[in-house]
Amino acid sequence: MEKLTIVKVGGKIVEEETSLKQLLSDFAAIEGHKVLVHGGGRSATAIAAKLGIESVMVNGRRVTDAETLKVVTMVYGGLVNKNIVAQLQAMEINALGLTGADMNYMLSAKRPVGEVDYGFVGDVKSVNAGLLADLISKDIVPVLAPLTHDKQGHLLNTNADTIAGEAAKALAKFFDLTLVYCFEKKGVLRDEHDDDSVIAEIDKEAFAQYVADGVIQGGMIPKLENAFEAIDAGVSQVIITKADAIDGTSGTKVK
Amino acid sequence: MEKLTIVKVGGKIVEEETSLKQLLSDFAAIEGHKVLVHGGGRSATAIAAKLGIESVMVNGRRVTDAETLKVVTMVYGGLVNKNIVAQLQAMEINALGLTGADMNYMLSAKRPVGEVDYGFVGDVKSVNAGLLADLISKDIVPVLAPLTHDKQGHLLNTNADTIAGEAAKALAKFFDLTLVYCFEKKGVLRDEHDDDSVIAEIDKEAFAQYVADGVIQGGMIPKLENAFEAIDAGVSQVIITKADAIDGTSGTKVK
Repeated sequence: MEKLTIVKVGGKIVEEETSLKQLLSDFAAIEGHKVLVHGGGRSATAIAAKLGIESVMVNGRRVTDAETLKVVTMVYGGLVNKNIVAQLQAMEINALGLTGADMNYMLSAKRPVGEVDYGFVGDVKSVNAGLLADLISKDIVPVLAPLTHDKQGHLLNTNADTIAGEAAKALAKFFDLTLVYCFEKKGVLRDEHDDDSVIAEIDKEAFAQYVADGVIQGGMIPKLENAFEAIDAGVSQVIITKADAIDGTSGTKVK
Repeated sequence: MEKLTIVKVGGKIVEEETSLKQLLSDFAAIEGHKVLVHGGGRSATAIAAKLGIESVMVNGRRVTDAETLKVVTMVYGGLVNKNIVAQLQAMEINALGLTGADMNYMLSAKRPVGEVDYGFVGDVKSVNAGLLADLISKDIVPVLAPLTHDKQGHLLNTNADTIAGEAAKALAKFFDLTLVYCFEKKGVLRDEHDDDSVIAEIDKEAFAQYVADGVIQGGMIPKLENAFEAIDAGVSQVIITKADAIDGTSGTKVK
């Protein structure tokens, strides 16, 4: 199988001109087939504020009412996505920006109202990876915005980590797949106050122990659970690292 | 050669929920392969106003400074494009939203500053239609936003009529192509005060005479010039009609 690297980047890296340029240059240098998954939350919050729309976050997730859905459609699907595509094209990377609605590649269902009503937020139901895999094998580089659709005419806001994980699981049938999650730290840390205490490798057993010991906590738990789910679904490796190391040579390797 | 119909719609048709739904339903009913090209100027003007950005139009074209480029990238590439894609998917049309940067399908150059500095406006230089034609033959329905790129990292605002014309000329090498331009009238009119005075067919000779007689004037002249250019480049027929007749059975046929 040919190699495919899926890189998920979020946060301010993709939203500041200088750091984005560096990131895209590093991304362009990755050998073989690749996919980029991006966020854009800070830009969405900024544009929403200018439009007089308040951003409400619950458990780190954006509550997406009808007006906010318009904003994230504009910002994720338009502003952030198309600028990344145009910049990659200048680096001779044949990028193609996509939401889940495009080629119906990622279907979701509106999250049921529980304790929180997240509004127009989608939980992924299925991925149609065939045509995507075909384009990737033709050296197209998909750039995935954090938006899915319900096949009933509605776009839905979907977490970029989830998009990356679901795309990876579906594309693992076609490629020898490495999934790289970038965040603000060098990897999963043994000591949150020591940026260099990166856990080099982690498996399920070690993860359970770290959680029991309180070493791994908070937002890192679902991130690692998603990583193990990807491994179980056939993804070769998941790497959790900082955006300046997307070549996967450092960070935490989940196996 | 297989048939391909390219439909260009602009104006408020794509920006009002009810008329858009009807249009997309008519579009979905067109037999064979198809492409939709859309505008979105009214939405761009409205969003720009909310963001405190003044819309400046010269000769019916938007002057696109850096802030306005962000707005049209959001509105054309995101809001309008992705909502059309999601709605077509609900009608079992496998739509794919694209700007010229996506798959590098349409390259342009920033318009030189003449009497007017239009800013980030692109004049089309070339179209890479091969991959697009391949996707169309696989029943993908491209939805083209009025944005191109310069391959140097910049998106450029490009008139939707031009996008439709250039895409048609390039795709005419692969398909038996009909190009349908929708606007607010039933066709090219013999008498602008009589909505039913549609000229059923027009060729270059008749066009020259109508222009000399003052029957055809204003914005219709470049529209028809573009149509004749498309015919010269191998497009089988160009139809100028109202949005409620995109099946091409009425309106003005340019040959």
